[in-house]
Amino acid sequence: MAEILFERVSLIGLGHIGSSLARALRDKQICRHISGCARTRKTRDRAIELAIVDSVSDDPAASVAGADLVVLCTPVGTYAEIGTAIASSLEPGAIVSDVGSVKRAVIDALAPVLADGVHLVPAHPVAGMEHSGPDSGFAGLFEGHWCILTPPPGADSAAVERVAELWRRAGMKIEMMDPSHHDLVLAITSHLPHLIAYNIVATAQDLEDVTESEVFKYAAGGFRDFTRIAASDPVMWRDVFLNNREAVLEMLGRFNEDLSALQRAIRWGEGETLEALFRRTRDIRRGVIDAGQA
Amino acid sequence: MAEILFERVSLIGLGHIGSSLARALRDKQICRHISGCARTRKTRDRAIELAIVDSVSDDPAASVAGADLVVLCTPVGTYAEIGTAIASSLEPGAIVSDVGSVKRAVIDALAPVLADGVHLVPAHPVAGMEHSGPDSGFAGLFEGHWCILTPPPGADSAAVERVAELWRRAGMKIEMMDPSHHDLVLAITSHLPHLIAYNIVATAQDLEDVTESEVFKYAAGGFRDFTRIAASDPVMWRDVFLNNREAVLEMLGRFNEDLSALQRAIRWGEGETLEALFRRTRDIRRGVIDAGQA
Repeated sequence: MAEILFERVSLIGLGHIGSSLARALRDKQICRHISGCARTRKTRDRAIELAIVDSVSDDPAASVAGADLVVLCTPVGTYAEIGTAIASSLEPGAIVSDVGSVKRAVIDALAPVLADGVHLVPAHPVAGMEHSGPDSGFAGLFEGHWCILTPPPGADSAAVERVAELWRRAGMKIEMMDPSHHDLVLAITSHLPHLIAYNIVATAQDLEDVTESEVFKYAAGGFRDFTRIAASDPVMWRDVFLNNREAVLEMLGRFNEDLSALQRAIRWGEGETLEALFRRTRDIRRGVIDAGQA
Repeated sequence: MAEILFERVSLIGLGHIGSSLARALRDKQICRHISGCARTRKTRDRAIELAIVDSVSDDPAASVAGADLVVLCTPVGTYAEIGTAIASSLEPGAIVSDVGSVKRAVIDALAPVLADGVHLVPAHPVAGMEHSGPDSGFAGLFEGHWCILTPPPGADSAAVERVAELWRRAGMKIEMMDPSHHDLVLAITSHLPHLIAYNIVATAQDLEDVTESEVFKYAAGGFRDFTRIAASDPVMWRDVFLNNREAVLEMLGRFNEDLSALQRAIRWGEGETLEALFRRTRDIRRGVIDAGQA
């Protein structure tokens, strides 16, 4: 049995990721006490019923009191407000981490409000499904995937290592990355795919000549995967796009250029161009499979 | 035990769909003899090894001799040539069908070359995965999905019903549709999703600041689903886009308009616009799940 890593972990937010983390903390006996914080009564009651936390609160400041680790698991647009609310209740030496899908904005929101003795160790476990709420979480969600840590310059190395060890025990592989580079990498591997999926589903919804019923029935032709991605949490994703604007717009610009070339090849019947492009994209699939991320 | 539907079925093409159909014909005892036709020696040998066909040939004309049903399971760009090659070898009263993802072009390619006594019943089983080749097929592929039949005006109703019954026995639900409407519906539920997936994977491949290894490692953030779709057969998909140009360009035009609006909302930080759009796309997921196509 590995030793306990933290005495008391406060999870702010008990949705899909927060509740999955709570379950992993439990299953792997990573800490002694889990203090959950959720805004709605329904989520708090459900978290207690599911026995995935030891105590609950609707007040972030109360939840973090006595915690040696706080993990923000809410949409990143809430971080500045939560950071301000908890700042004076944090123990000296406490670690503040998160699970947000953007990292530059997280540091900008939290670093200014946290006291000197508190360690900020932003993290992004790159895993998750389209589901929401405390019931949708499961401890195995993180297994085999990568967790990216983006500690600011001068971060306490012991604090960084403890957060890394937490995610290792939850089954993840660890990578250290500059926050801006993280935001660029995720813009292409996660943010743009979500934007495109939301967009094509909206396009389908607005057609006059194809009914919704037809869209549902023939979704097995490829569309269904997009509908799954486009069922992801709307507020979380709104906040991702608002907080990683530049990288997303950069990737979207390249995507649009490439799509214009494809559009032109279709219009002019350039079969060789199409086939050559469709052939080379197969290699990427092989790489994703070999990396164990398929 | 249901009675035999066909004496001798000729399958032209033994890839993912052709070999899945061969297995379904076997499993459900739909016909007495399956004559497979494949261009490469490797595929023919493998089909015999797998025992999914009773005989093989590299010559479509030889394969269709004596068949009461011929199903084209090759990329749609080959249909005109195959149609011409088999026309004089077809039995009077034989049915010619196919599994192609476009239907208007299929009728245009085949109707002019087939003799009067031969029945053309185009079909599209809307099922399939990104895999290719005879080993990738399985009889259950069609189960629970929809098969669209697009018989030309004046088609023999008994012939249409026999093809419908074949696909019913393979586990599919049947819909009749006008070929042009089919091409429009599939442009949004299948063709555009594939085009978008191929495109984003190519965009990711061409980045200077994000390595391929990073793309592989963090694909779990959403990208992996696109890589799966973009691993589909390059020649089959080239032919789809060349043969459904107008409907695909129409859908792509709408997609681009919608994407420009989203891009603008991100640039100007319009959170409410983003959230409202991300919320309404959730309903479509529910519809796809309720239709049993998730």
